Amino acid sequence: MYQLLHGLSIIEASSFVASPTAGLYCAQMGAEVIRVDHKTGGLDYDRSLLTAEGRSLAWENLNRAKKSVAIDLRSDEGRELLVELAARAGNLITNLPERSFLGHAAVAERRPDLVSVRIMGWHDGRQAMDFTVNAASGYPLMCGPEEWDPATAPPVNQALPAWDFLTGAYCAFALLAAIRHRDLTGEGSEVRVPLGDVAMGTVANSGSMAEMLYRGADRERLGNSVWGAFGRDFVSRDGVRFMVAALTEKQWSGLVAAFALADDIAALEAELGVRLDGDLPRFDHRHGLFALFQGRAGTLAWHDLSARLAAEGRTFERYRTMYEAARDPQLVTNNPLFGPSPANPSGFAYPAARSFANIPGRTAGDPRPAPYLGEHTEEVLAERLGLTQAAIGDLVQRGVARLSDRD
Amino acid sequence: MYQLLHGLSIIEASSFVASPTAGLYCAQMGAEVIRVDHKTGGLDYDRSLLTAEGRSLAWENLNRAKKSVAIDLRSDEGRELLVELAARAGNLITNLPERSFLGHAAVAERRPDLVSVRIMGWHDGRQAMDFTVNAASGYPLMCGPEEWDPATAPPVNQALPAWDFLTGAYCAFALLAAIRHRDLTGEGSEVRVPLGDVAMGTVANSGSMAEMLYRGADRERLGNSVWGAFGRDFVSRDGVRFMVAALTEKQWSGLVAAFALADDIAALEAELGVRLDGDLPRFDHRHGLFALFQGRAGTLAWHDLSARLAAEGRTFERYRTMYEAARDPQLVTNNPLFGPSPANPSGFAYPAARSFANIPGRTAGDPRPAPYLGEHTEEVLAERLGLTQAAIGDLVQRGVARLSDRD
Repeated sequence: MYQLLHGLSIIEASSFVASPTAGLYCAQMGAEVIRVDHKTGGLDYDRSLLTAEGRSLAWENLNRAKKSVAIDLRSDEGRELLVELAARAGNLITNLPERSFLGHAAVAERRPDLVSVRIMGWHDGRQAMDFTVNAASGYPLMCGPEEWDPATAPPVNQALPAWDFLTGAYCAFALLAAIRHRDLTGEGSEVRVPLGDVAMGTVANSGSMAEMLYRGADRERLGNSVWGAFGRDFVSRDGVRFMVAALTEKQWSGLVAAFALADDIAALEAELGVRLDGDLPRFDHRHGLFALFQGRAGTLAWHDLSARLAAEGRTFERYRTMYEAARDPQLVTNNPLFGPSPANPSGFAYPAARSFANIPGRTAGDPRPAPYLGEHTEEVLAERLGLTQAAIGDLVQRGVARLSDRD
Repeated sequence: MYQLLHGLSIIEASSFVASPTAGLYCAQMGAEVIRVDHKTGGLDYDRSLLTAEGRSLAWENLNRAKKSVAIDLRSDEGRELLVELAARAGNLITNLPERSFLGHAAVAERRPDLVSVRIMGWHDGRQAMDFTVNAASGYPLMCGPEEWDPATAPPVNQALPAWDFLTGAYCAFALLAAIRHRDLTGEGSEVRVPLGDVAMGTVANSGSMAEMLYRGADRERLGNSVWGAFGRDFVSRDGVRFMVAALTEKQWSGLVAAFALADDIAALEAELGVRLDGDLPRFDHRHGLFALFQGRAGTLAWHDLSARLAAEGRTFERYRTMYEAARDPQLVTNNPLFGPSPANPSGFAYPAARSFANIPGRTAGDPRPAPYLGEHTEEVLAERLGLTQAAIGDLVQRGVARLSDRD
């Protein structure tokens, strides 16, 4: 792991995807991230897919490189331990409700310069999940085949929980922004990030909200086409489906060369009486262009076509299923993003991801595994709260704390 | 704007979505973000949708609250100005290639503790865009109706450029992590974030890569169903389509109560000979459950059904088109995420987004507009590089620098 965040200690009281992801990014950058869970595991501890032995492959990837403390979070005594841990660390990531024992004020009472980042549902306190904010955002009704009738087209949900992941990354950013502010001024901050606001704010930031209001209507259905430029999926003679796009003149001319379509496009321009010399005319006349590109793609084997595209330095990619992607040498096996499998709690070995960032001149190190639940209970209670072995033993015996669930 | 990053100055040499987004998040948190563009605008300056007057609604939302410097980036003299601005600021966000005049080493020669964050395509230097890394990731072949034959199902691209936005947020995080490291050690960092690694790393972090490798196959098609739990879209008697899901026992029991399905589910359990008392059995027997829920939804008007769901505190959301979402009181008009329209370059007035985070006790302030291209050329060259009015006038006259394109 990179050590840019070495020395930073963060308490994470999390479940599901967004909140654990914020801690994950910090842990992969060298922070000490201590996930504190209820003694039988958080709400996400059994999330699919489970191995035959009952270990969650989702959990062990979202909690990589963290420490785990397991305590009885339904007891006052256990809750007191979590509040005290958060106060001592001074940095908290959570998706527990503001009106819970872990509200900002309760911890800040003991630690006035606390920085807490809390993931919420909607800004007004209503619950939300990735799928529900996505339904509200408008994106699912923009996805799916172009030929579907807009009046009856069903929504298409994303398999990627994009809002969860975006919220997680934004929370990691907001945490560091608030810590920087504290470093400079001594002031703590309570930062609340509603999942719903990440979605609606992104609709706005992308310009799409302004676009719809300016049109006074929804955008036309695009299917797999790129909005406002040339791009779509095509199929080679041997049935390989790929995505290709051109956002600059250089990309466009290379694409035309790779498909050897200069004469056909000139003929199309003459027929249409327009010059296809920019993103907008190419978008407006996309159906004519798509027919030419698919016509040519259908005469070429993928081996040839991909070689032509590569020779022109073009931006293209073959669609993979996720199982194909997971075994792809270029994407995974030979990609320095991935390191050797650490000793995962599941016992299953597979490529493990490092931080998305790579930093020349610094040591990336090997990826670390997720902890067993409670693996660091003893270490953290001793080091952070100064509890003796005897005191910890007593907590364990009374069911307030739990040690590793390894066996 | 919140001022958590007050005092931080960042040079952004950007185009498209990911790189401008990283700067946007910093600007919305109070950093001074100076976007430096070629004098006629970057590659993204004319991105759709354009207003009748030719202003890009995408650009003016992705560059909100930034300053703009416009110089001739094709000339050595203009490039020298950008390199010197980046060296003076000490913080750089860019998606220009490493092998360009703005490579890390070229700037760090003048500023050894430079922090640069560079967005790349793939880790190996190949170009990539949101749509092409998405094709590689496996997600597009997991989206779309459940009934499509897996062998022939076409890919469904996301209308949301999720990888761009996630990369932008991650880069804002990585920038602050590297700045924190410099604050503590004095060392600069060169941080490279490949768009393709954000996608493949997310496939891994979500647990899906491990899942596919463990299965030795792809996941079954799910359509709009939630993976590993109960959830899907349903349609009310009056044709309102909505998303609903239950990830916890409390959510499930509330959902059953709202739909008044306790007896029907007990009958289904008896028929199946299983207890539907957890995420996994409910997922495994989802088709039977979906039939019950859709049956009930089809007998209820949305007004009634949504009131029942709200009364039970359940997580649900009506699908909106994006045009509907953009005018929704709960999502936009009455949401404190959005502030009054500032004086946008387009002249078009619409709700403007603040930072995704809200911070009780601090002043959010009104959202600020994007700059006109070159609006801050004079101010920045004078303040940052100490150029005199005469020297700046000379640069403008010779076409090396350009002032505001307002008129």
